Amino acid sequence: MAQVKLLGFWYSPFTHRVEWALKMKGVEYEYIEEDRHNKSSLLLESNPIHKKTPVLIHNGKPICESMFIVEYIDETFKGPSILPKDPYDRALAHFWAKFLEDKSTVAIDILLHLGEEQEKAKEEVYEMLKVLDNELKDKNFFVAENFGFADIAANLMGFWLGIFLEVSGVTDLVTSEKIPNFCAWRDEYVNCSQVKDYLPPRKDELLVYFQLARARIEAAASAKK
Amino acid sequence: MAQVKLLGFWYSPFTHRVEWALKMKGVEYEYIEEDRHNKSSLLLESNPIHKKTPVLIHNGKPICESMFIVEYIDETFKGPSILPKDPYDRALAHFWAKFLEDKSTVAIDILLHLGEEQEKAKEEVYEMLKVLDNELKDKNFFVAENFGFADIAANLMGFWLGIFLEVSGVTDLVTSEKIPNFCAWRDEYVNCSQVKDYLPPRKDELLVYFQLARARIEAAASAKK
Repeated sequence: MAQVKLLGFWYSPFTHRVEWALKMKGVEYEYIEEDRHNKSSLLLESNPIHKKTPVLIHNGKPICESMFIVEYIDETFKGPSILPKDPYDRALAHFWAKFLEDKSTVAIDILLHLGEEQEKAKEEVYEMLKVLDNELKDKNFFVAENFGFADIAANLMGFWLGIFLEVSGVTDLVTSEKIPNFCAWRDEYVNCSQVKDYLPPRKDELLVYFQLARARIEAAASAKK
Repeated sequence: MAQVKLLGFWYSPFTHRVEWALKMKGVEYEYIEEDRHNKSSLLLESNPIHKKTPVLIHNGKPICESMFIVEYIDETFKGPSILPKDPYDRALAHFWAKFLEDKSTVAIDILLHLGEEQEKAKEEVYEMLKVLDNELKDKNFFVAENFGFADIAANLMGFWLGIFLEVSGVTDLVTSEKIPNFCAWRDEYVNCSQVKDYLPPRKDELLVYFQLARARIEAAASAKK
């Protein structure tokens, strides 16, 4: 039995965070793709409270919630540090990771909703982007000069959000006129080696996956009319 | 200037978590009571994103969000450990602290709302209490055998919830028939030395404060009718 197993969805930014940390640390692991509509008994037993991916199983013990898994990987395996060592910088990294985590579901709502509900999600995402735009003035990383924990939590905003906007036909939300610092940060983010080397090598596949998801949502809404 | 300042509300479980950690570690600090209706410029400058208490200021640097502050205090000051050392137990402590944190606002809704909205809040709190009831079977603490991080996060459920229910006249939610393990845990919690010594020594004052808050809410609702 593999010592390290990861249960996840290949298209999920949350699963991606864990894979990213495992790859950064050079940890060998067995990846198990879950079925959203028929979750495995291993997943349900491993995360009985939330029944959600990702779950890391290490030596038979389950760890849940993407950023807690990333922290566990950082503390357990050798390799480059993900969380800063300094307690103040650690508190900042936790703060920004939580901010990005708490607001991230709203970005997904842009993909999942139409009409008024989508407009509401766009407004909420824009409020968040303005905060990030202010924070990322002259900054490439969230904490100090180093890539780390909060930057991994930022993958939904730095990479997935662009795909959600593209497949949803939303072109007026993220523009360099409105949020120049965020746009500059995002361009740096997806192109810097600490990120680029670990992003899914299948942007085309992700696009197709979310295009199909969006098409199903639009078709279901049309059928209701 | 004091090296450690805490900005908070004396009646808040979130502020209490930070005071608890500071007292456990024997840290001297200056406590500054904030005014909810007229927040100080120090608070607004120290937590510009959320504008919320508690904020700890250590050597002029602000740290925000109660459980991140507790973690910062644990890492910065000598004294008894709050988070476990073992990475797996740390992940469990983070998991339960987040669960307690994410669900805690619903408990406050029982105090803040009336009628249907209060019933909805009661239902949500009951769903959470059932999860805790299952988890706390034969357990005094959330992680392993030791009092720690998640138990500090549990202060809203272990102590404040009882006050909210009392002043709101809700007697049918937390009963030992419905959730025996939670009730047994709560009785142990408020009486064990690790908790009792740090709980607010002014249960009467807290009761009066929340009774007045509840009376204002009920009066405002009556005036609208």
